[in-house]
Amino acid sequence: MTVKNPKLKVIPLGGLNEIGKNITVFEYDNDIIIVDCGLAFPEDDMLGIDLVIPDFTYLIENKHKIRALILTHGHEDHIGAVDYLLRHMNIPIYGTKLTLGLLENKLRESNVYNPEMNFCVTAGQIIKFGSFSVEFIRINHSIADSVAVAITTPVGVVVHSGDFKVDYTPIRGESIDLQRFAEIGKRGVLLFLCESTNVESKGYTLSEKTVGDILERIFEESPKQRIMIATFSSNIDRIQQIINSAFKHKRKVVIIGRSMVNSVTTATDLGYLTVPTNILIEPAQIKNYPPERLVIITTGSQGEAMAALSRMAFCEHKQIEVLPGDKIIISASPIPGNEKTVSKVIDGLLRLGAEVVYEKLMEVHVSGHAKQEEIKLLHALLKPKYLMPIHGEYRHLKQHKDLAISLGMDKKNIFVMNIGDVLEIDKKSAQVVESVPAGQTLIDGLGIGDVGSVVLRDRKILSEDGLMIVILGIHRESGLLVAGPDIITRGFVYVKESEDLIGGARCVVAKVLDNLNGNISNQWSVVKSLIRETLNHYLWQLTKRRPMILPILVDVNS
Amino acid sequence: MTVKNPKLKVIPLGGLNEIGKNITVFEYDNDIIIVDCGLAFPEDDMLGIDLVIPDFTYLIENKHKIRALILTHGHEDHIGAVDYLLRHMNIPIYGTKLTLGLLENKLRESNVYNPEMNFCVTAGQIIKFGSFSVEFIRINHSIADSVAVAITTPVGVVVHSGDFKVDYTPIRGESIDLQRFAEIGKRGVLLFLCESTNVESKGYTLSEKTVGDILERIFEESPKQRIMIATFSSNIDRIQQIINSAFKHKRKVVIIGRSMVNSVTTATDLGYLTVPTNILIEPAQIKNYPPERLVIITTGSQGEAMAALSRMAFCEHKQIEVLPGDKIIISASPIPGNEKTVSKVIDGLLRLGAEVVYEKLMEVHVSGHAKQEEIKLLHALLKPKYLMPIHGEYRHLKQHKDLAISLGMDKKNIFVMNIGDVLEIDKKSAQVVESVPAGQTLIDGLGIGDVGSVVLRDRKILSEDGLMIVILGIHRESGLLVAGPDIITRGFVYVKESEDLIGGARCVVAKVLDNLNGNISNQWSVVKSLIRETLNHYLWQLTKRRPMILPILVDVNS
Repeated sequence: MTVKNPKLKVIPLGGLNEIGKNITVFEYDNDIIIVDCGLAFPEDDMLGIDLVIPDFTYLIENKHKIRALILTHGHEDHIGAVDYLLRHMNIPIYGTKLTLGLLENKLRESNVYNPEMNFCVTAGQIIKFGSFSVEFIRINHSIADSVAVAITTPVGVVVHSGDFKVDYTPIRGESIDLQRFAEIGKRGVLLFLCESTNVESKGYTLSEKTVGDILERIFEESPKQRIMIATFSSNIDRIQQIINSAFKHKRKVVIIGRSMVNSVTTATDLGYLTVPTNILIEPAQIKNYPPERLVIITTGSQGEAMAALSRMAFCEHKQIEVLPGDKIIISASPIPGNEKTVSKVIDGLLRLGAEVVYEKLMEVHVSGHAKQEEIKLLHALLKPKYLMPIHGEYRHLKQHKDLAISLGMDKKNIFVMNIGDVLEIDKKSAQVVESVPAGQTLIDGLGIGDVGSVVLRDRKILSEDGLMIVILGIHRESGLLVAGPDIITRGFVYVKESEDLIGGARCVVAKVLDNLNGNISNQWSVVKSLIRETLNHYLWQLTKRRPMILPILVDVNS
Repeated sequence: MTVKNPKLKVIPLGGLNEIGKNITVFEYDNDIIIVDCGLAFPEDDMLGIDLVIPDFTYLIENKHKIRALILTHGHEDHIGAVDYLLRHMNIPIYGTKLTLGLLENKLRESNVYNPEMNFCVTAGQIIKFGSFSVEFIRINHSIADSVAVAITTPVGVVVHSGDFKVDYTPIRGESIDLQRFAEIGKRGVLLFLCESTNVESKGYTLSEKTVGDILERIFEESPKQRIMIATFSSNIDRIQQIINSAFKHKRKVVIIGRSMVNSVTTATDLGYLTVPTNILIEPAQIKNYPPERLVIITTGSQGEAMAALSRMAFCEHKQIEVLPGDKIIISASPIPGNEKTVSKVIDGLLRLGAEVVYEKLMEVHVSGHAKQEEIKLLHALLKPKYLMPIHGEYRHLKQHKDLAISLGMDKKNIFVMNIGDVLEIDKKSAQVVESVPAGQTLIDGLGIGDVGSVVLRDRKILSEDGLMIVILGIHRESGLLVAGPDIITRGFVYVKESEDLIGGARCVVAKVLDNLNGNISNQWSVVKSLIRETLNHYLWQLTKRRPMILPILVDVNS
């Protein structure tokens, strides 16, 4: 059924009121295009969860309409859930060369991945998808080959910023295409979806080149030391600058960490990284060079327990041993939540006698996200009628709204939304009309969405106070206790030192059964909850802890 | 036994290579004095733990020598473990009036607390404890009435900085007694124990007064809004400045949160807070005043789930409802690890329509700890022969060492130590000679030290993948399975959607028993570990999870 003069629907299914799992749906009549499909990392209270992906219900229900998935760049929070989406549908994917290269790296072994459905685009290109025509626009970010998109729809032009910064002196390629943003703006922009990650920060984000300058200075000042640099494996331009300095100072380069090796290989193959001949050596060759002739580029800048830098810090790395006098640079900021693990890695490296340079001491990292002045610049070039702040916690979206108001925008035209909200928009009006299913699907091991609130609640109880299992062998007909009560605990107390407590618990249970006078034959669930309540009270009095209590009644009427 | 010409022993039992649980022991011959006795908050991997206190073994073994516990100020990381130490010994406690007042607040209901053993001192006072003579020196910090101590020992003078900053324009009382530090320095300081919290930061920590100035400006710019300010309850000077602005702008003040009420009461009673008559009102009276006549001072600046601000943000506070247009100031920095919870509270408040001002947006907080220039100043005044950096992670202690070397100190005279290390020192030499028991005692509910690595390991396994209990009723003599296998899981999968998985697990267990051909009578532990291994393999293949597996065999030979 085709509606006459339908409106455009813009539906963020992730990335609002959260950091990560960015995904936005654009729907017009019978056509849907999706921009990005990312993952998020679990919150502290999502115990045991590995990843979080968007709820795809709405896309599954409407998969016949989907014309394309468009990827703005190759970071996990933009491409990390593609694998899971493809399990439900076989759709064409559009992205720039590096973005698709990184996606292929991830999905090569997935049985839903079909390279024939991947289509490489370049900035400046315009592609038609049903009622939509999508133009890819060059921007700067902390990963090469990032784009924004301008989507021409029957009701007007919508611009989606992707993740961007303004870098007038980028390492490779050109600066963000401000002229094109201006042209599009001049012709009229109906809606701007703009990222909000750094909207709390005043001023401009510094150029990537400033980091290269600082790193070069460190190289100059450390002619005798082995240099090791940990950074994000996706930050190809950072890696390029390190390799440039290494080349200038006649040092060999060792690449350490699986994702770093993959990323360097892909970026080199695709032409995003220029590596001088013979500069790369294998870890096994390190022993053939003196420290001052070596640079090690490694993963682990976030203090991740399994990453190379962390293993080195705790002397668990098979190939690299940190030596006294090593100069180790952590060229990254701790992502919120990682401060403590990064701090532990720094301590470990220092204890081994290394000199460690990190963001607090020197400016060895810059953000990939626009600060206030850059966001204002895009607003000024595009002059959109409507704004939807995206990519941020609520406080970022709100702050972005305030910033737009300060630029003269009417606050009625700014939509701070929730994921799943449907913004219906045409030439004259825009409003949130309804909402569709949206939320988080938790990935735990191979399980997709099989861990929900009940399982997480149990994990939380177990994590805080452990559990107590009470085993009773009961002769069901007579109601007599013929075995037990036996008590097993895990994660509750150190058992050998708590014999009185456990013995007391056994007595408490026995007394409960005594009081029932064998009247328990058909009421096992009543018996169980009575045991739980009584034990709960007993343990709380003595320990102020509330372990999970699991009474197990075994019928021994054999 | 008295040794001839004994050396001074300085033994940090906490506060080195960690943040918190500050405690240092000074021992000379038959005399011991202890400086501070604080707690630390649990690390992320200490699941279910409430608090961490020092290991008191060494003090318990030597309690006959202990002459005094000296407290430098009233923060939890300096006084929070006193209660636990007093369970082992009844010793005199010395501190300034406010410090003892806050201690009494905490311990009033403790049955080990004995107010007659508390002795109030003032800065400038000198007290003799056996071979030691201790002078209390005025400093500045984020809590009033803080002191450093200069300990005259038979081998020389030792200065312990406590936690300090240099504030030339303090809110109450005087600036740090730099003249006295200079005098002591002039006479010669053998050893300086100096705090290292902010040693990574260049420059000076700003005066507390600058926060008052910013707050006053916010009051001026918000004549129509209700103002709410969350801060640390112990920061009496901050509270004083808020009350001053409230008075100036003719607003009533409401104090919210148990610790804030306690702290304001104690500080007022002891003369550290000057509260104009009739300015304080009860929460119940709020309704009698328009928003622009009110200021609410509250706890919860760290996003603590149970604190007032957090409850308000999620509409769970009984007395205060956040209203659109409220101006809420979070006058604090998130302590590392608290960033995410603070962020959630900010989001919650913004969603309710409040305007929220926090450190990222305005300078509404200053630290209580000295930055590099202030640390250098004390070094320059004291010119100690030996240095022991204290109060910090390893990287802080190391950075402090580097700073001291840059001031001309000989690196052989700087001791970056571990807790428990014993520094033996006399007029001519200093060296680490041995170590005594030191570490962490975990507090979980009423339990002190009954949760150790085994219990924590179990909690971690349970928190990540939950558990699976397998119940088997077995006729021991025949080895026949007469009941089960029954399977119970918690925190593993959502059971209703995992019937196949659980059914499969039941089959796996049944097969294990089949293969044993009833040959299990005396080998239950073998059976159990066989079940564990086989199930572990089965579940990992299908789910990539490793729940704790607990096989329970019940003998039904009745």
